[in-house]
Amino acid sequence: MITAQEIWTDIIALRSKAPLIHNITNYVVMNSTANALLAIGASPVMAHAIEEVDEIVRLAATVGGSLVINIGTLSSRWIKSMARAMKAAKAYHLPIVFDPVGAGASRYRTETCKRLLDTISPSVIRGNASEIAAITDHTVQTKGVDSTLSSSDVLQTAQNLAAAFSCTVCVSGAVDLVTDGRQSTYIKNGHPLMSRVTGLGCTATALIAAFLAINSCAFAATAHAMAVMGIAGEIAAQQASGPGTLQLYFYDALYNLNSQQIETLLQ
Amino acid sequence: MITAQEIWTDIIALRSKAPLIHNITNYVVMNSTANALLAIGASPVMAHAIEEVDEIVRLAATVGGSLVINIGTLSSRWIKSMARAMKAAKAYHLPIVFDPVGAGASRYRTETCKRLLDTISPSVIRGNASEIAAITDHTVQTKGVDSTLSSSDVLQTAQNLAAAFSCTVCVSGAVDLVTDGRQSTYIKNGHPLMSRVTGLGCTATALIAAFLAINSCAFAATAHAMAVMGIAGEIAAQQASGPGTLQLYFYDALYNLNSQQIETLLQ
Amino acid sequence: MITAQEIWTDIIALRSKAPLIHNITNYVVMNSTANALLAIGASPVMAHAIEEVDEIVRLAATVGGSLVINIGTLSSRWIKSMARAMKAAKAYHLPIVFDPVGAGASRYRTETCKRLLDTISPSVIRGNASEIAAITDHTVQTKGVDSTLSSSDVLQTAQNLAAAFSCTVCVSGAVDLVTDGRQSTYIKNGHPLMSRVTGLGCTATALIAAFLAINSCAFAATAHAMAVMGIAGEIAAQQASGPGTLQLYFYDALYNLNSQQIETLLQ
Repeated sequence: MITAQEIWTDIIALRSKAPLIHNITNYVVMNSTANALLAIGASPVMAHAIEEVDEIVRLAATVGGSLVINIGTLSSRWIKSMARAMKAAKAYHLPIVFDPVGAGASRYRTETCKRLLDTISPSVIRGNASEIAAITDHTVQTKGVDSTLSSSDVLQTAQNLAAAFSCTVCVSGAVDLVTDGRQSTYIKNGHPLMSRVTGLGCTATALIAAFLAINSCAFAATAHAMAVMGIAGEIAAQQASGPGTLQLYFYDALYNLNSQQIETLLQ
Repeated sequence: MITAQEIWTDIIALRSKAPLIHNITNYVVMNSTANALLAIGASPVMAHAIEEVDEIVRLAATVGGSLVINIGTLSSRWIKSMARAMKAAKAYHLPIVFDPVGAGASRYRTETCKRLLDTISPSVIRGNASEIAAITDHTVQTKGVDSTLSSSDVLQTAQNLAAAFSCTVCVSGAVDLVTDGRQSTYIKNGHPLMSRVTGLGCTATALIAAFLAINSCAFAATAHAMAVMGIAGEIAAQQASGPGTLQLYFYDALYNLNSQQIETLLQ
Repeated sequence: MITAQEIWTDIIALRSKAPLIHNITNYVVMNSTANALLAIGASPVMAHAIEEVDEIVRLAATVGGSLVINIGTLSSRWIKSMARAMKAAKAYHLPIVFDPVGAGASRYRTETCKRLLDTISPSVIRGNASEIAAITDHTVQTKGVDSTLSSSDVLQTAQNLAAAFSCTVCVSGAVDLVTDGRQSTYIKNGHPLMSRVTGLGCTATALIAAFLAINSCAFAATAHAMAVMGIAGEIAAQQASGPGTLQLYFYDALYNLNSQQIETLLQ
């Protein structure tokens, strides 16, 4: 459904336009997602103060960009900023990617997701299968931030969620699912070692935001980003001796990615 | 006192059970401790909002896990969440590891430690020699977060602290001391370069929490975790050209650790 | 204007004195700047609670050190702590390095810089060309946290800023400018790949603080720190296959830096 050529076109656009990605994200991954965004060619900014989120959103909309909302280390003040930034993004037509980290692990997380999503629909929601299940069916409980389900377990759920919010839903896992409620595709790239590096799910969310900034089709942008994640992970895994070195080679792979590699490795 | 076989038994348990480690820790090390926990086989979750700490603690107690309380970048709101999480952990019988980062560097740190520990005794307290001295004798002042004492300087202090709180105390340094007030042991593994990587003390605390989740003897779990820290550090140092590469090879070493390496390197 | 011998003298002093660098900095770079400070030989401490900043500043002044104020992920509480710490630093004669991250990207950032700087003059201000322009002329707007100007574009601006606050101003970029309003110098070391690693500007600020702790001439300390940044970046780039590995080799290069390398590479 997606082609190496289309992915490559997006990467060229990313590298030349360097879109501004406004991240309101969790403490754990701020550094690693900023590095991934820089490696792929985007320009990340982290800004969460209620006093400035409107203006940073407007700036990103003006120069070209997108907004990441990631609830990984949520607290009441940050949630207020997230709500405000999402509202501004809607007003300024800035695409939003939403990451419900740990939804299902606490009612606070699940209900925060529900409240934010019910107010403003994002362009894309990305989570693991447990998180996607939890924000759809609020009785699901997960184990912390790691999933206990696979993406194919939640195909119907993801399609319903996409339809409900008129958005694209990405369920990441050993195989990634991307659906907009009508069309669905599976991305089979990636490597098991990636699950032993913290925050690669959050990195996927940030990369989706980068692709969304230069490709107005949310379904394609999401699928392209997930394919690039998986391909870069495979390249990195070939060189890595464990999860520590994997993370570094992953950034190198994003930075050095060429059309030949995408052509060869895309599944 | 500790054997390679016992350490290996714990690592096998960790890898198969993937306990949920709830971390309320400092901003500096959130990413690095999450990576260390994933590398050893545990499942980390960072959650500090007062609205959800009870529930995350209960979840960790239900699926098997432990709680890390690390005051490294403390502030009033975080302290309230720490107190609440510790109280919940006691109620749900979830083991607690406490890290008094920078105790002695300010009265605020020293008094926060005293107040938290006086309310709820953790299973393990881990700090460097200056920190352990400071929380025992509140007139001790340290230099920032690095120690000016060695672990053997504070043997009596550590034994008294362990007796006072009925817990295990770990004093990390060039040589690590582990005591529960009755029995004491020194762990001699490790490498000087490890002191040039930020947060490896906090990583030690997190690994103790991982071992404590699968080994109910706090003394043994602590000693095993410290031996694994040291052994992985030695393996990493053999490949590293400085502290930057050391950190990455350290994660790789944790992930790849085998019984042969423990047998050969345990001192 | 600066010599390899003078830089080397500072590095020897840093390694032997291990000054205490108190950082009130942003979430994105806390880990990476702590690692850079440890690698060069300093002792970092991150502490932002209003209850303890006075005492940590006094401790740094007593044992020898400096204060970093970096507004990268500012919010109202943190700004109060920054103001309090800067006031304490002035009282205890602790040198301050100020980093106006993202000034110009929002009025909140620009005005916070103005308010903090108008109250207490730091020893050094370091920013990219857009940030330096924004804090001088409050009508300048930047693109997020990345610069759209070069350091030579803002020579006059930087000189005026240095004169206005009686401080040294460092404008980092492909070529770095250091000026105290009377004398100015350009540092030509560095590598393009460094701009693809998040927070290396913040790392430069932290290294300036380290040099300032052992060299009372702010102009020389700043120039030496920027030369060391650039030289370590060049050494790292020779080994790196991309921005991921660059960051790690950069720490290794800081740690292993010798007089021969400085002699050979200083431009």
